[in-house]
Amino acid sequence: MLKHEAGATGRVFHALADGNRRAVIERLARGPATVSELAAQLGVTVAATVQHLQVLQDSGLVRSEKAGRVRTCQIDPAGLRDAEAWLQRQRTTWEHRLDRLGAVLDDEQKEQGS
Amino acid sequence: MLKHEAGATGRVFHALADGNRRAVIERLARGPATVSELAAQLGVTVAATVQHLQVLQDSGLVRSEKAGRVRTCQIDPAGLRDAEAWLQRQRTTWEHRLDRLGAVLDDEQKEQGS
Repeated sequence: MLKHEAGATGRVFHALADGNRRAVIERLARGPATVSELAAQLGVTVAATVQHLQVLQDSGLVRSEKAGRVRTCQIDPAGLRDAEAWLQRQRTTWEHRLDRLGAVLDDEQKEQGS
Repeated sequence: MLKHEAGATGRVFHALADGNRRAVIERLARGPATVSELAAQLGVTVAATVQHLQVLQDSGLVRSEKAGRVRTCQIDPAGLRDAEAWLQRQRTTWEHRLDRLGAVLDDEQKEQGS
């Protein structure tokens, strides 16, 4: 279970390491778009866009639906939440440690002052 | 400037795509550690650990200082904040869009009801 989650978090970060894939997420955050619209915005081929979308779908960042010959993509919030939660956990752990350090230093100062 | 920032965000996500490098961040969030301590925890060689640390330092996630022959590493919060801010921005944009959609649907229902 933990291993699966760790793998999922890794896939999200891997997906977001690419500037074109981040541009797709920034676009889809504002609303759904078709594959052709995304390709036009990125200035790359439809084939390259489909490959980026596959990585984004595998990591749980994007969903898509096909109606006739048109595939429309939208944000899947699960992936974003997953990555954000991991980062928040590290920052909180680090900040709590700083708070504890601060408290220890305060106590030492008081002891020296008394 | 924007291009530099985009590159920096990409470097942070690239650094965090690797499970060993995420393990280093999870360890350092709890407090500083030497390179040997990190290598022992990961169960990899010191040379491999140094390579991972280089990627983490280049992305602004880790800082290190050498005293004598011992290099001690600690979290650099800049990288964590950078990645968290990007994710938050996407999620907020997406949630605002859902809110606006909800408001439009409410208005339509009211019009149909009147």
